[in-house]
Amino acid sequence: MSESKSKLFNEEGDLVVPKAVVGRLSLYLREVQQLIRDGKETTNSTELGKLLRVTDAQVRKDLAYFGQFGHPGVGYRCQELVAAIKNIMGTNNTWNVALIGIGNLGRALLRYKGFHDQGFQIVSAFDVDEKVIGTQVEGVEVYDIQDLSEIVVEQGIRLVAISVPSHAAQTVVDQVVQAGIEGILNFAPVTISVPSKVRVIGVDLAMELEQLAFTVVNRDSKS
Amino acid sequence: MSESKSKLFNEEGDLVVPKAVVGRLSLYLREVQQLIRDGKETTNSTELGKLLRVTDAQVRKDLAYFGQFGHPGVGYRCQELVAAIKNIMGTNNTWNVALIGIGNLGRALLRYKGFHDQGFQIVSAFDVDEKVIGTQVEGVEVYDIQDLSEIVVEQGIRLVAISVPSHAAQTVVDQVVQAGIEGILNFAPVTISVPSKVRVIGVDLAMELEQLAFTVVNRDSKS
Repeated sequence: MSESKSKLFNEEGDLVVPKAVVGRLSLYLREVQQLIRDGKETTNSTELGKLLRVTDAQVRKDLAYFGQFGHPGVGYRCQELVAAIKNIMGTNNTWNVALIGIGNLGRALLRYKGFHDQGFQIVSAFDVDEKVIGTQVEGVEVYDIQDLSEIVVEQGIRLVAISVPSHAAQTVVDQVVQAGIEGILNFAPVTISVPSKVRVIGVDLAMELEQLAFTVVNRDSKS
Repeated sequence: MSESKSKLFNEEGDLVVPKAVVGRLSLYLREVQQLIRDGKETTNSTELGKLLRVTDAQVRKDLAYFGQFGHPGVGYRCQELVAAIKNIMGTNNTWNVALIGIGNLGRALLRYKGFHDQGFQIVSAFDVDEKVIGTQVEGVEVYDIQDLSEIVVEQGIRLVAISVPSHAAQTVVDQVVQAGIEGILNFAPVTISVPSKVRVIGVDLAMELEQLAFTVVNRDSKS
């Protein structure tokens, strides 16, 4: 554990930064990257707060978890802040990612341009369907899932995105864990079991709509 | 505001249920629906806690926000719990949803089977590209975005999913708001501005990978 990260962990080595703060870090990064594209060189907590719809005090508090980024009278230098946040997120170097499951969503993910800009490259794809194995989809080679362990080592893959049908998800996850993968982005709408050392983030598209419906139904309760 | 919802709101009419609890409601629903598919008639807080990896006390506390669902000596009746959660989420009736932006992700969303099971039907699609306007994609008619207001009224659409390029997102959002849409699921990786009465949930796929990278990089800090 490096000294510079000391505020992030307690004595037991558990992360003490609230999840919401880590979530906002990604939003700060996205906004500052946009400011750079717009030609801005500096920003400040008031501007970032407005963009994220939080107070400027919240911006300063969020960033303070990770160190001192501001310059008196200047605010934050955009390029510096982007580099600092990418360093925190671990995305200052590109991650090689594998995609598992070449269905409709899988193909859309292969075509999605947004991953590369944030430091992720889908370098290989896997499926069980012999009709797609050996072909290329969007310039990415599709391999037999049986070859996962081998390719993962060869290509230095640490993360996978899983877009297989629900009923196949746990089997695929077990293969992924066996292959030494450290993080799983799971698009299958089921809860999956992994050993505690493997990290999982689930993205359930129907659940997002459901959460939206809840906020719409329970909005405006004053009337 | 109905009496049965009284615990959900404070005297100012603001929702007092933590976001995390509302998020878990969707997970409970997904798990209980799976239990029903597996032939189970009842469940309990211990089983649900295991499935979601929270304590059984947490399950009881979460559900207690919304009323009394358990039966002494029985636990929860699955069908009853599904109906109750759907009632809370506002998904006991199907929502008509419009999709805006027929790119790769848009097409994948149109093909996605999971929405219907959770109470959402994409009934129409919109784009600006004359090559797709007037065609059907996955059995869904694609309209000119200029006709949005009209179709929204005709088809009783209250929610939209937006999968347009980032640079077009705010323009589309303004049109959507103008058309009276109440909730937006935004897949464009930009922060959008809406009036306070309109609800937005953003799904940024690259950001999800970034959050995953963070948890992998900051995992196992004890070693």
